[in-house]
Amino acid sequence: MKIESGIKHFKKPLYLESGRILEPYQIAYTTYGELNSDLSNIILITHALTGSHKPVKEDGCIIFNNGWWDGFIGDDKAVDTNRYFVVITNVLGSIFGSTSPMSPIDQHSNKLYRYKFPVITIRDMVKAQHTFLQSIGIRKVKAIIGGSMGGMQALQFGVDFPNFAEHIIAMATTHATTPWTIAFNKITQEAIKRDPKFQNGEYNIDEVRQNGLDGLAIGRMAGHISFLSHSSMYKKFGRKYLKDDGFFDINGRFQVDSYLEHNGNKFSKLFDPLSYLYLTKAINIFDLSNGYSSLENALANFKAKLTLISYSGDILFLPEESKEIANAMISIGKSNQLSYFEIDSDYGHDAFLVELYKFEFIIKGILK
Amino acid sequence: MKIESGIKHFKKPLYLESGRILEPYQIAYTTYGELNSDLSNIILITHALTGSHKPVKEDGCIIFNNGWWDGFIGDDKAVDTNRYFVVITNVLGSIFGSTSPMSPIDQHSNKLYRYKFPVITIRDMVKAQHTFLQSIGIRKVKAIIGGSMGGMQALQFGVDFPNFAEHIIAMATTHATTPWTIAFNKITQEAIKRDPKFQNGEYNIDEVRQNGLDGLAIGRMAGHISFLSHSSMYKKFGRKYLKDDGFFDINGRFQVDSYLEHNGNKFSKLFDPLSYLYLTKAINIFDLSNGYSSLENALANFKAKLTLISYSGDILFLPEESKEIANAMISIGKSNQLSYFEIDSDYGHDAFLVELYKFEFIIKGILK
Repeated sequence: MKIESGIKHFKKPLYLESGRILEPYQIAYTTYGELNSDLSNIILITHALTGSHKPVKEDGCIIFNNGWWDGFIGDDKAVDTNRYFVVITNVLGSIFGSTSPMSPIDQHSNKLYRYKFPVITIRDMVKAQHTFLQSIGIRKVKAIIGGSMGGMQALQFGVDFPNFAEHIIAMATTHATTPWTIAFNKITQEAIKRDPKFQNGEYNIDEVRQNGLDGLAIGRMAGHISFLSHSSMYKKFGRKYLKDDGFFDINGRFQVDSYLEHNGNKFSKLFDPLSYLYLTKAINIFDLSNGYSSLENALANFKAKLTLISYSGDILFLPEESKEIANAMISIGKSNQLSYFEIDSDYGHDAFLVELYKFEFIIKGILK
Repeated sequence: MKIESGIKHFKKPLYLESGRILEPYQIAYTTYGELNSDLSNIILITHALTGSHKPVKEDGCIIFNNGWWDGFIGDDKAVDTNRYFVVITNVLGSIFGSTSPMSPIDQHSNKLYRYKFPVITIRDMVKAQHTFLQSIGIRKVKAIIGGSMGGMQALQFGVDFPNFAEHIIAMATTHATTPWTIAFNKITQEAIKRDPKFQNGEYNIDEVRQNGLDGLAIGRMAGHISFLSHSSMYKKFGRKYLKDDGFFDINGRFQVDSYLEHNGNKFSKLFDPLSYLYLTKAINIFDLSNGYSSLENALANFKAKLTLISYSGDILFLPEESKEIANAMISIGKSNQLSYFEIDSDYGHDAFLVELYKFEFIIKGILK
């Protein structure tokens, strides 16, 4: 499979939803496979909160979560790179190459944005991706596919650029983030902001990369709860206790404790605290009806065929939330553009990354 | 209603499940109403993690959560203090008067236990309460009633002191804490332990009481998520945004953010970090079958009538967990001692404290 990566720089301003202007900015991207002559085989993948433009495993790639959708994208996989030219960019605000709070404010100084970075919305992420795609000659794609925050982008593409995609496939996502998810994000945001090492955003980067930030580690542990579910945790860990820890030791740990610690600590060295604040902010304020009088009015723009896939055990973005989108589509007479699937799963939110065998037939069916 | 409160001191050692010995120790208690002549009107209430021996609102009482079951206990209430003599103690390990990690190690110094405090189990809490009750001449009670960690104690009473209670009423609880709940506790434990002001348990008490501990505040926010549910949060907050906060301000808040902040901050000044570690440890390692070959074998001791009340929207202790207890009782031929109620509620775990009208008829029926 042919893989190309790069960073593209934009000198023209990006006008953000907040009224702020991002100028200049850059977008990191990867493409897989080869573009055909009539440009009809393009698939855009949109990534989730801690994803990146590196969904396929690459030797030597040190980006966190590299290969996060490895089983899904590649030769003969659901998104078949023998047939399709797959494009993915790192979203604005994420630190894996695109412009983020940890980018220099201008090219003439080393001063970083940090808290001076503007709030980015899902709509802004989509606008930047659209600009990027146009800049490399892409004016239309066969499909946009994304889960979680990636699903939000896919939906927003359908509203903001109705003629851009033939199919929009949004998994494990919502049309408007609920207080439940905002609350989980709040744990992380507070844990980061109250960590003395965070220093109101002026943290020492080298030190944080080296040792991690406790606040980010704690927040990630909360994240891991929200990605799983009561029953998936029970199946995964039960009440197993670490054999080297004392049962009556105040610091003794169950396996689930150890799992959260390990993942939290690891993550806190590989992700960036300010970037996490900005991306969760984008998720929190996401509402597809922003700028419209209702969800139905926003969806009225849709020309693409929309496929919604939800997972019964997802506690972060419930199947009900996808159903609300489906019902809104039906109520405005767009049922012929709509497919809705609810996958039976007790894996939790992560099902869209893990239980591929349960839904890849849907993707294959659409892309056939 | 007659109210009496006090602290009782015990010089004889309390042999703990861990093998450690607590000596001396003290138990803070409150009684409501009057004891009848044949001592047949006694009800024991057992409290939850952040509860206390002050479930009824008292003027001037500064204990956190004072009045936590005010609607439930009192004259003409479900637990009617016109008829019953109600006793409640503060559990070992909690800081509202009973011996805790913040008690002096011995009477001859001011040195506090802190991390030298032994791990306390639910069984230890029950043993200490039983000793206390015997010391004031109580050898039998009409009923033991508790929710959450209080329900664990009620169940443990039934196993460890089969002849003690006529009725055991356990609400919103479990027979063995699941990894889901352990994971939520982990967030708080890590947030406390990693807070630099915690100083490995040697924190400055005055400073923490004055300003709170951020780690405890963050942990409590996670707790509040677990006490509610997806739908109760949606009903309570929706996507309402604070009117004085900027939507595109990185620190702008939804109402749910503000709710978590407010409750987390308040709690962190009114509860104690080490006590929280010890009480969540007790909850985590609780398993009614500890010391028995199975749950059924533990329940075989039961002579009391057992009433289990679960709440459909409780995500911390699921109705399934109460059903497992009920099924175990049935499988050992004790269905005649068993009542099981599942209350339809989307309030979450807190339903047993909040939606009294949905289940107080059960209590009234039992106590009639």
